[in-house]
Amino acid sequence: MQIKVDKKEIYNGIKTVSKAVSSKSTLPILSGILMEAKDDKIKLVGTDLEIGIECSINAKVINEGNIVLPATYLSNIIKELPNQDIELIVDEDNNAKINCNLSEFKIHGFPADEFPLLPEVEAGTQYKLEQQTFKNMIDRIKFATSNDESRPFLTGGLLLIEDQEIKMVSTDSYRLAYTELELNKDLSFNKVIIPSKTLSELSKLINSDEEMKILVTDNQILFEFSNITIISRLIEGQFPNYNQVIPNDSTTEIKVNKKELLNATKRASLFVKDNSNIIKTSFKNNKLIIESTGSKVGESYEEINTSQQGENTEIAFNANYLIDVLKVIKNDQVLIKLSGGLSPGVIQESNNDDYIYVIMPVRST
Amino acid sequence: MQIKVDKKEIYNGIKTVSKAVSSKSTLPILSGILMEAKDDKIKLVGTDLEIGIECSINAKVINEGNIVLPATYLSNIIKELPNQDIELIVDEDNNAKINCNLSEFKIHGFPADEFPLLPEVEAGTQYKLEQQTFKNMIDRIKFATSNDESRPFLTGGLLLIEDQEIKMVSTDSYRLAYTELELNKDLSFNKVIIPSKTLSELSKLINSDEEMKILVTDNQILFEFSNITIISRLIEGQFPNYNQVIPNDSTTEIKVNKKELLNATKRASLFVKDNSNIIKTSFKNNKLIIESTGSKVGESYEEINTSQQGENTEIAFNANYLIDVLKVIKNDQVLIKLSGGLSPGVIQESNNDDYIYVIMPVRST
Repeated sequence: MQIKVDKKEIYNGIKTVSKAVSSKSTLPILSGILMEAKDDKIKLVGTDLEIGIECSINAKVINEGNIVLPATYLSNIIKELPNQDIELIVDEDNNAKINCNLSEFKIHGFPADEFPLLPEVEAGTQYKLEQQTFKNMIDRIKFATSNDESRPFLTGGLLLIEDQEIKMVSTDSYRLAYTELELNKDLSFNKVIIPSKTLSELSKLINSDEEMKILVTDNQILFEFSNITIISRLIEGQFPNYNQVIPNDSTTEIKVNKKELLNATKRASLFVKDNSNIIKTSFKNNKLIIESTGSKVGESYEEINTSQQGENTEIAFNANYLIDVLKVIKNDQVLIKLSGGLSPGVIQESNNDDYIYVIMPVRST
Repeated sequence: MQIKVDKKEIYNGIKTVSKAVSSKSTLPILSGILMEAKDDKIKLVGTDLEIGIECSINAKVINEGNIVLPATYLSNIIKELPNQDIELIVDEDNNAKINCNLSEFKIHGFPADEFPLLPEVEAGTQYKLEQQTFKNMIDRIKFATSNDESRPFLTGGLLLIEDQEIKMVSTDSYRLAYTELELNKDLSFNKVIIPSKTLSELSKLINSDEEMKILVTDNQILFEFSNITIISRLIEGQFPNYNQVIPNDSTTEIKVNKKELLNATKRASLFVKDNSNIIKTSFKNNKLIIESTGSKVGESYEEINTSQQGENTEIAFNANYLIDVLKVIKNDQVLIKLSGGLSPGVIQESNNDDYIYVIMPVRST
């Protein structure tokens, strides 16, 4: 194998596929990146067997071939090289020689045929979607997945495609995030759970307004956008019936400035009792009052003007669950719907029905 | 005590003095910041008993008084407050009430008279110096101090004032950094060792071109600049005779591009044997060759064009010691002076004699 490639081009490719490379795999070859040179392209692949990321970059292929090189070393070397063409030559013993300007590196590689093949994802249902739109949906739900490995079906986000809509849902059983997208065209039904790591990497790698391709099979999901392909396993199991969790009506409804609410909640969370993280909120005559007490250090009282409809009420929340959603909401105003202090609260963007966040109340002491 | 103060003003003050607040002190009151309100000023003080930082800010003092409040809480609350006036009221039981807009916080404080007094530094020798000039001197030497607590006199930087010059020196016995400043006026003699933490905080806090005042006594040193005063203990002991360490002559002298040398050294350091960090350098016919071998991953070879005078030679260095100084040097070109592979090497800015860095050779294997 012998190639010439632009430094920036290959560095970006390596950074991209490195996101799938596991630092703590027991299989040494998985700490490497597969490089395949063919037809004036290099295909780079990284995988931890759960998720695989492929990236295709342009190169001058002098001799076709392939090799697996250690991801961290490769990335660190190329990062420090000048912005010039890099030549890579691989011999029969899987030793790679990298030349750039007056630098030369020899790196021991692994034979490419020992690298696990990413599964071929071919027969499946295919969808097309604008990249940023999908990223926005992911960002709205990815933070509410569970870390509890004993209930794996909560450790990912549900992707539900039915009729003319794409829906995404996540819950850790203390809060639930739901977002939907109306596409105005009939779509084949699908209902799968995507691991939260896959959602995070997708969100980080999507960087254009162009269309992306999503291909769903029984066990795998494939995302294709720009020069990147991500293949991920799906999580088995039955996702909870989220419709039962989203309240249909409310007895109190307020509109409030998002930034004021976010900053007040952050301040109040400094005075929570030990690590409970509980803040008390009162909705009273066009005022939202946030109180936290019980900390050894002191206590806090916050008052925010709101526009309220319905009854006055009180409810206690985990401050972090409130902060998480307020960081994601893009609208200046949020809508909070409550049905007393013992029923779940709903937070939405005001004038916007496509994002619903449900947060369970906690008992305040 | 009752004051009104601008949010940004007090936040900056708190951030400044927090640098001296210890997070792991056994004395709870030292986790706090002393606030003293008097004559339309608030004096903020933080100390870990080794270093004390004072900052004076403008405020409307309604009632004079003082209190000690927990630094982290204070800083976190005020950070999240809107950019408005903050009112602080302290009652007789050392409880502080902070009001801003519609937020109210109650924080339990400590009585101010239990806070350790910073030593009065009055009788001493006084010097005046441009702030940025002094910061530049500190940055040139602070990274070469030792962490070895068994030789405390190496854990700080020497400040030597004699004749018409200010000199600063540091060494960890593997390398030595020396910088001097010619002031063209006679100065009182002084020779003290400043703790490396003090040097770091000074470098971070200096942010103007104006003059600063330095006051030296037997045990303490005081720095006064902008609205900040830093008082630090001095380190006792005899600093090594650095003149003996700086070589007087050389048999090889090269000029080389700093950035090329820095990047090549960084790349070479990726291939060092285990954690030895040793790279081999050869100076040969206007070329500098850097090689590292012995790593399991591979090896590297770097060639850089130089302008050489004198003999060809070879020498091995700790790569990090080379990287450290190259990061600080501002000049595009560096001058390297050698006397064979067993004598210390000297690195300087080319065309500039006021900074000398001496680096010990290591035995390469």
